[in-house]
Amino acid sequence: MTLFDAPADPPEGPPVRVRLTVAYDGTSFHGFAVQDGDVRTVGGVLAEALGKVLRQKVDLTCAGRTDTGVHARGQVVSFDVASDTELHLDRLTKSVNSQLAPEVVVRDGAVAEGFDARHSATRRRYRYTVVNAPVPDPFLARTAWWVADPLDVRAMNLACDALLGEHDFASFCRRPNPSAAAMGATTMRRVDEAEWIDDGGGVLQFWIEAGAFCHQMVRSIVGELVEIGRGRRRASDVGRVLRARDRSLAAQPAPPHGLCLWSVTY
Amino acid sequence: MTLFDAPADPPEGPPVRVRLTVAYDGTSFHGFAVQDGDVRTVGGVLAEALGKVLRQKVDLTCAGRTDTGVHARGQVVSFDVASDTELHLDRLTKSVNSQLAPEVVVRDGAVAEGFDARHSATRRRYRYTVVNAPVPDPFLARTAWWVADPLDVRAMNLACDALLGEHDFASFCRRPNPSAAAMGATTMRRVDEAEWIDDGGGVLQFWIEAGAFCHQMVRSIVGELVEIGRGRRRASDVGRVLRARDRSLAAQPAPPHGLCLWSVTY
Repeated sequence: MTLFDAPADPPEGPPVRVRLTVAYDGTSFHGFAVQDGDVRTVGGVLAEALGKVLRQKVDLTCAGRTDTGVHARGQVVSFDVASDTELHLDRLTKSVNSQLAPEVVVRDGAVAEGFDARHSATRRRYRYTVVNAPVPDPFLARTAWWVADPLDVRAMNLACDALLGEHDFASFCRRPNPSAAAMGATTMRRVDEAEWIDDGGGVLQFWIEAGAFCHQMVRSIVGELVEIGRGRRRASDVGRVLRARDRSLAAQPAPPHGLCLWSVTY
Repeated sequence: MTLFDAPADPPEGPPVRVRLTVAYDGTSFHGFAVQDGDVRTVGGVLAEALGKVLRQKVDLTCAGRTDTGVHARGQVVSFDVASDTELHLDRLTKSVNSQLAPEVVVRDGAVAEGFDARHSATRRRYRYTVVNAPVPDPFLARTAWWVADPLDVRAMNLACDALLGEHDFASFCRRPNPSAAAMGATTMRRVDEAEWIDDGGGVLQFWIEAGAFCHQMVRSIVGELVEIGRGRRRASDVGRVLRARDRSLAAQPAPPHGLCLWSVTY
């Protein structure tokens, strides 16, 4: 390296790790993960907004790679900034929000040495909302699945029992891509909570928590449970489908817009 | 009138009066009231959808003429159909909803002899939502006013006392148009309820009920109360402004998107 190639102010020391909690309405995004081309993603607009304020390229790691149309209240991201960056987290949050809110909102931020939004996470909690009423609700149209058929919530909760604990969720997972499979990706997951709460006014919320989820797992489970609620499948079918490890036996996944990444535990 | 001008099947008997309860997300509408020209209004799209199904011109009367951007959960409308109309309310509701939902939704319908959505109403109840948090909420961006300054809800509720009962609300009303004023329109109103409910999680809901409201009355009152919550005005100012009957003394009206016509009593 000649002197001409050397940066004017070479950064000293290791980069600084930053952690942010982010909420977003996923309606108009092609999911979180940055993609090639002109595809608008949450991670894409967030990295761009952060990069503009910090004047450096920002590579984001996230706790849950939400799909197209899926929302988040408590997504967590981490990224590095060069050690010589003037970092004012409060100002950073404000300027990013002034660019992206209310569609994407940074709720809080912290410097977090050694923290990794994905690998440090021990539990993820999702909420899936169903409006179960004869007519749709204009105010929940973007964030809930409207199901007009009356649902038997008791049967749906009975079916949840079979999901608790550690199982191979292959029947409720989109097949991992070949490279992930080659790297030994499994569909074994441990579910700690799975419960429907009926607000008595036509809104059903499904809460599910696990160490991690495989791709489309929550939506596949919700699709199966709603079929049980409709009386088209029996509560005992969940265990049968689970044991078969065969995705073709599971019901269609529920639509993405009812799903929200609620919180992540570290 | 010659025979050629006579309708083929002259309707027999008086028209049939129909009542509907309607919910809508007012974000993309120029209010409820039908307007001339290409202005998209809730009443306009609703009358058009009803007319298409019923194959006749429909003139709507509503309980509350909501402004641009204001929402409704329990708007009530009434209209007449010719006595020879084949009226299937369930089918009517379904076809209108298939045209307009989820933005506008007919929640229920009934035949209601002698009913008038506007004049038969005895009480209207509105809800105004404020998100009081350092950052906005992506999921309430369309239906709540985001106020970052911490609000003193106790002071806001204290100020509500002066609103209860019968008063001249001229200070909190947009001046009625000259023709309405000439017809003896007054700004005397009786408020039966006015209260802020704090959910403890950053969402404040203001509930107000009255026999009727004058134009922009709820938004003007909310604007005043939020100034009190911010500490820029005192709780006792509400009574002073009210007694002055001078709109220039009141605070700016709150933005329309936090307001929702909740229900109407008959």
